[in-house]
Amino acid sequence: MRISELSRQAGVSIPTIKFYVREGLLPPGDLTSATQATYGERHVRRLRLIRVLREVADLPVPRIREIVALIDRPGESLFDTLGQAIEALPPYLSASCATDRATALLDRVGLTYEPNTTAVQQLARALDAVDEVDLPADDARLDVYAEHASAIAAEEIAGLPRDAAAALEYSVLGTALYEPVLAALRRIAHQHHARRLLDVLDAG
Amino acid sequence: MRISELSRQAGVSIPTIKFYVREGLLPPGDLTSATQATYGERHVRRLRLIRVLREVADLPVPRIREIVALIDRPGESLFDTLGQAIEALPPYLSASCATDRATALLDRVGLTYEPNTTAVQQLARALDAVDEVDLPADDARLDVYAEHASAIAAEEIAGLPRDAAAALEYSVLGTALYEPVLAALRRIAHQHHARRLLDVLDAG
Repeated sequence: MRISELSRQAGVSIPTIKFYVREGLLPPGDLTSATQATYGERHVRRLRLIRVLREVADLPVPRIREIVALIDRPGESLFDTLGQAIEALPPYLSASCATDRATALLDRVGLTYEPNTTAVQQLARALDAVDEVDLPADDARLDVYAEHASAIAAEEIAGLPRDAAAALEYSVLGTALYEPVLAALRRIAHQHHARRLLDVLDAG
Repeated sequence: MRISELSRQAGVSIPTIKFYVREGLLPPGDLTSATQATYGERHVRRLRLIRVLREVADLPVPRIREIVALIDRPGESLFDTLGQAIEALPPYLSASCATDRATALLDRVGLTYEPNTTAVQQLARALDAVDEVDLPADDARLDVYAEHASAIAAEEIAGLPRDAAAALEYSVLGTALYEPVLAALRRIAHQHHARRLLDVLDAG
């Protein structure tokens, strides 16, 4: 297809498509003459990926470049490549903080982890913030969180495609896009359970 | 205590404390002379709340002002006041999108909800983004998400303090600060389950 049709199908303007090609995010089309190129399904798919990572997940261009490079040339170990791709997603944390409390929790609930990942840092910081304002963070509460987070993750990983490029797209997009689905469902479930609790208290 | 001691205990600088008083986020101290005021535990507590909402949850000052106003003067219905306080938290969504798919999901899984809340909009948008990149979003997958989000929310709402001001602080801070705890645990559980799956595949 021509660039105008690609633009229509992917919902991305022609100047933006040209920008992505210059930035190395999108492979160039196949030249059919000195001034014309043709594009295929893989371009549509790649543009949708880039658009969602930019507009929904709010990734800067260099991070998207890292991700598409891994999709195009995954390393020998799929596990390590997945880890590298996930590290390109927000949050982008600066200076590190102590992770003893986070890793003690993970050891207690039996979750194995890679110590130098952003997720472990993010957990350590989140637990520090919870403690600072005296929110409940006893073992019972954290065990409930770990149990349900693990059940969700198990379901997601069970759906991991076998092809490396597809597995990378699934993991990056799934990590970024199911997160707000889960956050929204949790807030709505708060409404549901609070309504029931407060109705009982008001009636009592 | 004097303002210097308040600053030390809450980890907030004196100019920032004065800014919060001017902006109506923090009640002024009790005047002990024409030029000196004294502060108490409630000031320390309020400053910690403000600091976490600004620095961790990234709230703009006007949104924090809404929340502290609700804590100081909750309305007659605690359920409605909680809803108003939660609406002051991010995400701040502009123009609305169709919520039919989101509400159909909520109806199917039996979660009651307030239709005009940000959470329902956030769910609708998140589901649109998931569809756009062809991530799995069949009933089976979404039911798993709803089930575990509801179990997490039930545990959290069971811990709701009975006092209105305490319930508001718990809900606002809990919504904002447990969200990254859960997001981090989900990402770590991905590592755990992916490691097991990929070890099995490599061995097979």
